Order: sequence, then structure tokens, then C-alpha cells
Amino acid sequence: MKIDGTPYRSIWVDETDGWSVRIIDQTKLPWSVDLVRLTTLEEMAHAIKAMLVRGAPLIGASAAYGVALAMRTDASDAALAQALDVLGTTRPTAINLRWALQRMGELLQKLEPSARIGAAYAEAAKICDEDVAVNEAIGRNGLALIQEKAKTGKRVNVLTHCNAGWIATVDWGTALAPIYMAHDSGVNVHVWVEETRPRNQGASLTAWELSKHGVPHTVIADNAGGHYMQHGEVDLVIVGTDRVTRQGDVCNKIGTYLKALAARDNGVPFWVALPSSTVDWTIRDGVSEIPIEERAASEVTTMTGRAMDGSIATVRIVPTSSPAANPAFDVTPARLVTGLITERGLCDATEAALTEMFSDLA
Amino acid sequence: MKIDGTPYRSIWVDETDGWSVRIIDQTKLPWSVDLVRLTTLEEMAHAIKAMLVRGAPLIGASAAYGVALAMRTDASDAALAQALDVLGTTRPTAINLRWALQRMGELLQKLEPSARIGAAYAEAAKICDEDVAVNEAIGRNGLALIQEKAKTGKRVNVLTHCNAGWIATVDWGTALAPIYMAHDSGVNVHVWVEETRPRNQGASLTAWELSKHGVPHTVIADNAGGHYMQHGEVDLVIVGTDRVTRQGDVCNKIGTYLKALAARDNGVPFWVALPSSTVDWTIRDGVSEIPIEERAASEVTTMTGRAMDGSIATVRIVPTSSPAANPAFDVTPARLVTGLITERGLCDATEAALTEMFSDLA
Repeated sequence: MKIDGTPYRSIWVDETDGWSVRIIDQTKLPWSVDLVRLTTLEEMAHAIKAMLVRGAPLIGASAAYGVALAMRTDASDAALAQALDVLGTTRPTAINLRWALQRMGELLQKLEPSARIGAAYAEAAKICDEDVAVNEAIGRNGLALIQEKAKTGKRVNVLTHCNAGWIATVDWGTALAPIYMAHDSGVNVHVWVEETRPRNQGASLTAWELSKHGVPHTVIADNAGGHYMQHGEVDLVIVGTDRVTRQGDVCNKIGTYLKALAARDNGVPFWVALPSSTVDWTIRDGVSEIPIEERAASEVTTMTGRAMDGSIATVRIVPTSSPAANPAFDVTPARLVTGLITERGLCDATEAALTEMFSDLA
Repeated sequence: MKIDGTPYRSIWVDETDGWSVRIIDQTKLPWSVDLVRLTTLEEMAHAIKAMLVRGAPLIGASAAYGVALAMRTDASDAALAQALDVLGTTRPTAINLRWALQRMGELLQKLEPSARIGAAYAEAAKICDEDVAVNEAIGRNGLALIQEKAKTGKRVNVLTHCNAGWIATVDWGTALAPIYMAHDSGVNVHVWVEETRPRNQGASLTAWELSKHGVPHTVIADNAGGHYMQHGEVDLVIVGTDRVTRQGDVCNKIGTYLKALAARDNGVPFWVALPSSTVDWTIRDGVSEIPIEERAASEVTTMTGRAMDGSIATVRIVPTSSPAANPAFDVTPARLVTGLITERGLCDATEAALTEMFSDLA
């Protein structure tokens, strides 16, 4: 998508040297657009862990390029194994990370070390291109849901949580792809953007993306979503996900479950947009089987933003005498999910529907 | 309750001059304890509007002292009417504000102007003393719920939203009164403190109160409450309220409704602590009948805290190109409320139970 008129992807190989990897440092958004250059496995691992790149599909693509960078330094079996190991432990929840590393590993392990660098870059690029195509398909499939709501002639209000936009993927996004397509095709669509504490990816990333693209939106506290649903101000909810189980349980940013409950209580459709690579076919019960990443308490106790003098500053918002806890994700049981928006079409959040639509993967 | 060993109320008449009113500027908490001196109607109206004082019971007591300050300047009928009018429009949601002003108005309108100053101060003091007694009774009645959970011998985890502690009342608090009593009586109680965006009254006020009293607690993002309930880490929820309708619908800080939904989904008891003055006997359907205060967007787009150099700083956390909306309260339908903790005892959240327990008021 575009930043100030220029088309970007969220990750690409530097066109001047042909091998280093460029990303947008998402911890600096929305206040500055820093196009960081990564040259080593360690730099990529840090970028994933410190969330310079985030969003399940982009984490997968980043990990693939991380392997390519590692191979450039040392393409031995030991170095490959170490790269897969280092990258595999950067973030515990995103299934795409494991998926991308498995794909890279299976391909490269079969090759002679001398062939691994070229093959790794080619495969990482392929993962990126595939992600763009998949997200475009998700957008087309989800667009129908928004167009249906638009038939009343009134503004369509979509609520989203966290950031599942183009910068969470390589391009287009998952949850935001249908919204971009609706907006571009002239549908009067407005987005309730939940700020998404504690890291504020809604307020800082989704709001930034939508602003840059010109999509009407309003930022709200995470607490406010239920209220707007009670008052008929939300036509549908679309969120992304970090992992969907075989039976359709949805692991996504902490707080998603609360919005699914409110949607159910008010008869608002609750849709989850995802590429099939996000499905973890090995587990069923998300609440008991998905490990939930516990992140630093400082994400809750401090807040970073732009100070009045224009500098980026961090302020403490919890008394120093109070501890804090920070589970990063929660699980929305499949029974609360209206359906899944996938690259192959709309799908019920049930094992039967998922294994039928993805019989080649399940 | 105590601050660093010294007992305080949240509002009192200055002991040196005997007429000015002292409050704790709650916008400065937890970083500094500023005991502000108020001398005029306008200063009190500003203190309520700008939330130097907040919490339904304390707003009522503050309004009563606001009338007393006004009478000291001008005790005429016109001045009394104006004082009631000015104070009555400071905050639209709190029923206690209307209740206290009505009580002051009815008393003072019957008196000669010359008798009004003394009567106003006496009545405001009486409102304060009554509030303390009422909250102590709420604490005793709610204590039984926590003691019941403690019978397992394990730590009792109570989740609360916003601040319904002693600084939201004149003393003791509503939702926190049972917790203080449980802690003081040796029950192993731990509080999940939701930060309560956008004004962070949980992170800044409830955490501060509990720290000062030594009650174990953990601050969490509002988004995390449902997750902890799913995993059996919440034994009961206790919140305060700004207005309860005749049928038991509960208006409280935005986000309360979402926690009630999660409590219901996980079989966690959801209790609401309130003095009977918080019941609005004139309305039934909270969702359609309670006007919801829309506060400044800046509460969502900016965050104030303590900078690394110790100064209090405000940072912007939403891109300047993005609008924000800020409904301050939501309504939890009575069907989601396990029961009400009142000064007269525990009560079902139904019209039948409320009108039976409060037949003299209903």
C-alpha cells in the first residue's frame, strides 16, 4: 500500500546492494518512518523479538529472510540449524514463524551449502509474493461482507482490534484488506480502531495506515467497543489472528475475546481474517493448548508517545510500588466466531468446515 | 483510610479557617498528593468537572460543599438556584450529584438566607459522615463474599475496574471496602487492577490506594481481564457504579460491560457495590435511558505520566491525523449482574429485589 503516495511493502531486499533486508521500524510509527537495513541473523532476530516487525504473516516473511541473511554468513548445516533455532524462539505465539522456518529448513537441508544462499533468498521472496497474493484474495473474499452491509445505503461501521493491516503482512493486510478494497471501490466505510493496550498497535499502527490511505476512522479505547455495539454503531467486527486451531479457536491480541463476547451479545457478526498458514492443524482446544506469551510488565507500566516538544518520550503510568502482568494474547473460542475469511473463501469456524476447505493441508 | 500512616478522608473542611474545603487533587495521583484548598462555587465546580474529585459518592459530597461555599458568598434565593444549576451540570452521569444537590436545595430553600451558610455546612458534613457509615456497611456485607471464596484456603483473586476505592467516596470506598476489610482481617486476597483506559483510574488511583494500604495487587491492561477469567484466575469481580436503574442495570466506567460478559461466560460472580443513593428509581432500561457522557478526545489521544526525569509529562499516542471518540461509561444489563452489595445487604439486580430491600426509597 502507499505511504504519502509511494507504494511500499513492509519488507524487501535493498535494491542498491541486492542482499540486505529493509524493513519499516514499526516501533517508531506513527511518528517517523524509519527504513531500517538488516544485515545479519542477529539483527533480524532482534527485529522480530523487539517488534520492529510484527504481525503473524510479516513475522513469517521476516524469519525467512533471517535464514537467508544467516546463510550469507555461513551456509553450513550447523549454521542453518542454529538460524532456525534462534529465529524459532523469537516469538512464541505466531504459527507463521514456525511455518516459514519449517519451509525454509526443509528446502535448504536438501541442498549443498553452496546452493543455499541463492535458494534462501529466492524462497523468502516467494513467501513474500505468496503472502501478497493470499492477502489480496482475503480482501476480495471479505469485501463481499462489507458490500452486503452497504446495501442499506448507510455508512458501514467496521470495528477492528490491534493491527492486521498491510504492515502486519507483506502487503494488503488480513483484517484490513477487505476494508481497503471496500474503500477503494467507493463503499462508505468507517473503521472503529481500538487502541489495543498495552502496545497500542491500533492507535499507533492501524490509525496511521488508515490515515495514509484516507480511510475514515475513529480511535477508541479498547473499553468502548462493547458500548458501540450495544448502541447499533458496529455493523461487523473483523480482526486478524496469530493462530487458529483445527476446531476454529482464534488466538489474537489480548482483548479480542472480550469483543467477540460483546459481538455475540449484540448480534454483530464477528469475522476473523487469516491466511491458511495461520491455522495450526495440530491442536484443537485453543484455551488449553496455546501457550500465551507473557511480555514485559513495562509495556503496561509505561507509555511511549510524542511529547509536546516533538521528541519521543516514555512516561510511567503505574505507581512504582505496583507490579503489573502482561499476557499478550487471548483465545476466542470458535463458538463466538461468525466465520473465517481465508484466501480460499469464507469458512465456518469449525473443524468440519476447515478440514473440508483445506483438505490438502489438514 | 491511610496515606503513609496518616488517616485521611477524601474531602474535609480546613481545620485552620473552618470554612474552606480541602480535597486531594486526584489528577495529580499517584505522583504527588496535593491537598488543594477550594474557596468558591466556581472552584468546586471546576474541581468536579476537571475530575480533581471523582467517583460518584465523592462527587455528591463535593457538590454539597460547593453549595456551602456558594452560600458563604451569597445566600440569596437567586444565588442558591444558580449554585444548584452550576454544580448540576458539571458531570452528567453521576446520580449522586443530583441526589446531593436535591437534598441541599430542599433543605436550604426552606430557610431564611441568613440561616443557610451554617445549615449548608452542617448538611454537607452530614452527607460525608453518612457516606462513611454506608461504605463501612457495604464493606461488611461484601466481606462475606470474599470470606466464602477464602474457604478453599487458596488466595482469593478479585478483579476490579476503574476506582471505587476510598478516594472515590469520602472513606472506605464501595468496591474496595470489602477488599480492605478482607485484607485487614487476614484473608489472603489479591486484586487484579484493570488500568481503565482512557483515564487510567485503575492504574493510577486503585493501584496507589492498594499500595498505600499494603493490599497485594497486580495492574493489568483492560484487555486482559477476560483471559484471566478463562484461566480460572479470577474468583470474583467487584466494581462500583455511577448509576443503577430500578431494574438493576448498572452504569459504570466504560469497559465494565465487557467484564460482565466475560464473567458470565466463565461462571465468575460479578458483583456491584453501591450505596442506595446511587439507584435512580426513575428509570428502568439503562442502555436506552442513561445519557452517556462523551468526554474530550484528548483523553484517548494523549497519556500523562511521570517522565524519566521525574517531571509529569503528556505524550501523544494517536497520530494527529486520526480523530478519537471517548464515551466515558457503559451500561451492564442487570441479567449479567450476580448481585448488588448495598449498605443494607446483598440484593439481586432485579426490580423486585431492589424495591423490596429499599421499599422506603423506591
